[in-house]
Amino acid sequence: MSETTVASFSLEELQLATRNRGMPLEALRYDLTPTGLHYLLVHFDIPYTDPATWQLRIGGNVERPQTLSLDDVLALPSRTEAVTLECAGNGRAQMSPRAFSQPWLNEAIGTAEWTGTSLDHVLRAAGVRDDTVEVVFTGADHGVQGDVEHDYARSLPLRETAREEVLVAWAMNGRPLEPQHGAPLRLLVPGWYGMTSVKWLTQIDAVTTPFDGFQQTGTYRFRTDEDDPGEPVSRMRVRALMVPPGFPDFPHRRRVLPAGTTTVRGRAWSGTAPVVSVEVAVDGEWQQAEVAPAPSRYAWAEWRWSWEATPGEHVLACRATDADGHTQPDQAAWNVEGMANNRVQQVPVTVR
Amino acid sequence: MSETTVASFSLEELQLATRNRGMPLEALRYDLTPTGLHYLLVHFDIPYTDPATWQLRIGGNVERPQTLSLDDVLALPSRTEAVTLECAGNGRAQMSPRAFSQPWLNEAIGTAEWTGTSLDHVLRAAGVRDDTVEVVFTGADHGVQGDVEHDYARSLPLRETAREEVLVAWAMNGRPLEPQHGAPLRLLVPGWYGMTSVKWLTQIDAVTTPFDGFQQTGTYRFRTDEDDPGEPVSRMRVRALMVPPGFPDFPHRRRVLPAGTTTVRGRAWSGTAPVVSVEVAVDGEWQQAEVAPAPSRYAWAEWRWSWEATPGEHVLACRATDADGHTQPDQAAWNVEGMANNRVQQVPVTVR
Repeated sequence: MSETTVASFSLEELQLATRNRGMPLEALRYDLTPTGLHYLLVHFDIPYTDPATWQLRIGGNVERPQTLSLDDVLALPSRTEAVTLECAGNGRAQMSPRAFSQPWLNEAIGTAEWTGTSLDHVLRAAGVRDDTVEVVFTGADHGVQGDVEHDYARSLPLRETAREEVLVAWAMNGRPLEPQHGAPLRLLVPGWYGMTSVKWLTQIDAVTTPFDGFQQTGTYRFRTDEDDPGEPVSRMRVRALMVPPGFPDFPHRRRVLPAGTTTVRGRAWSGTAPVVSVEVAVDGEWQQAEVAPAPSRYAWAEWRWSWEATPGEHVLACRATDADGHTQPDQAAWNVEGMANNRVQQVPVTVR
Repeated sequence: MSETTVASFSLEELQLATRNRGMPLEALRYDLTPTGLHYLLVHFDIPYTDPATWQLRIGGNVERPQTLSLDDVLALPSRTEAVTLECAGNGRAQMSPRAFSQPWLNEAIGTAEWTGTSLDHVLRAAGVRDDTVEVVFTGADHGVQGDVEHDYARSLPLRETAREEVLVAWAMNGRPLEPQHGAPLRLLVPGWYGMTSVKWLTQIDAVTTPFDGFQQTGTYRFRTDEDDPGEPVSRMRVRALMVPPGFPDFPHRRRVLPAGTTTVRGRAWSGTAPVVSVEVAVDGEWQQAEVAPAPSRYAWAEWRWSWEATPGEHVLACRATDADGHTQPDQAAWNVEGMANNRVQQVPVTVR
């Protein structure tokens, strides 16, 4: 265990890291993340679901409660969107002190083409009443968190549910959802962190008071201390990540690169506004990278920067800025749960 | 961080755990592991490969060196095999002291249907000469391990290469290989631990002396101390794993189960001989489980056992025995690299 960085992760954190799945950062090369490389965070167990008997119920404060089979949903108008998803806890393991939860470094990301029907179609068919304030989405995954036994559930403000690109989705990258991504049906909320895109969707309820389930009020909050209720986490903060250049060693994953011209490349996204700029730094000197148009509003944009790499030890970094003027900090403000840490990625490399 | 188990994993181990991927054990329910849930271990980076220009070269001690395109390989007779793969390092994090490498607990497993052509077809076309002792397989993944810069490469004794179920494979679960599983071509050696099934296969060489590359002689050995060359790791040891019963909490993943009749189920496999028996223990009392026939010689067999769960704290365990009389130990013999740890799985549950 010589030559490792002083840090100490518990067996329980490791247990989460070996079952949840990050996207290896070299996969930033792909416009669409191969399905098996997309990040994955599952709170409880992946439920064992049967498409043939699946039912999606729409109820609560609606005129016409509905019970839809998978075939009923598949018969609705379909729409395909390339969407970047990121876990709200991405970067948690780089906050100190860190929360006890899935210890992501940078890799809880992925972009897929999702196919489904606009949530709005489903809600219109049910007739959401005028005094509705939120819509609650419940999945089939069941467990205990915060001492509360529950099916995973999250809500969205009504204005967000009317966005046509918010989907009840049944396919990912052109094929039916794999079990771990929510088969047979899931919610997909472009622009928001992944916790909102409820997988294994069984129930949609219109409600007249804000939802106070555990996953809404007990977690996914920007809390400054344990007693602070905190503001809710919602849209993805602006972020750029790079493909680590060169090749790694095993097991440290230090990078080695030959001297000469190399293209530093990666992707950038923001849930709040389009990305307008990406910068790359070598040893702290920032330069503008070239950013390609994003394939869709909520999919990441590719960026590139040409580097004349000189022999020696260097630290590369990248940061994005969006049209609302948000940019990435060198250190993100600490919060209790380690949410939304979009601090600048740094990649040490040895050029030789 | 209260109520966590005393254990300390380094940042570098976590970094490996967030990019490599275990199969969540509830996925033991599936005969075939969904592609995106199969375990994954990549030493270096996932190479960026182009099927259109891919070449597989067969050379070394052969009569007729070959260079095959992907289309050339796809035109060869095809064969599909359901095969269970396990990482040789599975269980490493449960050995003490443990090696610094990917810190698997139990989850480095998966079963897929692999489609390809028998390696034997490819070798016969090239005409392996009589004095050949091994065949060396080289992949496109490149990096440094043990201070040696190399493309990942492993060899097989000649007798193993003649087994018709050893494949040069291009498909997994009926679709072209995803990048992380070796696209466009990989070796697939049923019965052996996964390190032998070289991904991103570029070169096959017949050799007249045993291969001494780093991945053959510097690692994947049963070493009792740092100076021991050790015996090579080869076939998968017998092993049973169960679907953890009930539901978990997040983040500890402690299991809770209602009292009453429950089916404890899982899978068992062995690379050396067919599984003939699986036993389940509740609090140390072993009972015979029912084992279904395996769908093929090198795929896992399903087993089930009916349990009258009584309220309280219990520890479940399972162990398999194969036709050669191998069974699983409560504690596996320690080795330097934490190889092939097939100790009995234990699952604490609270019944209420």
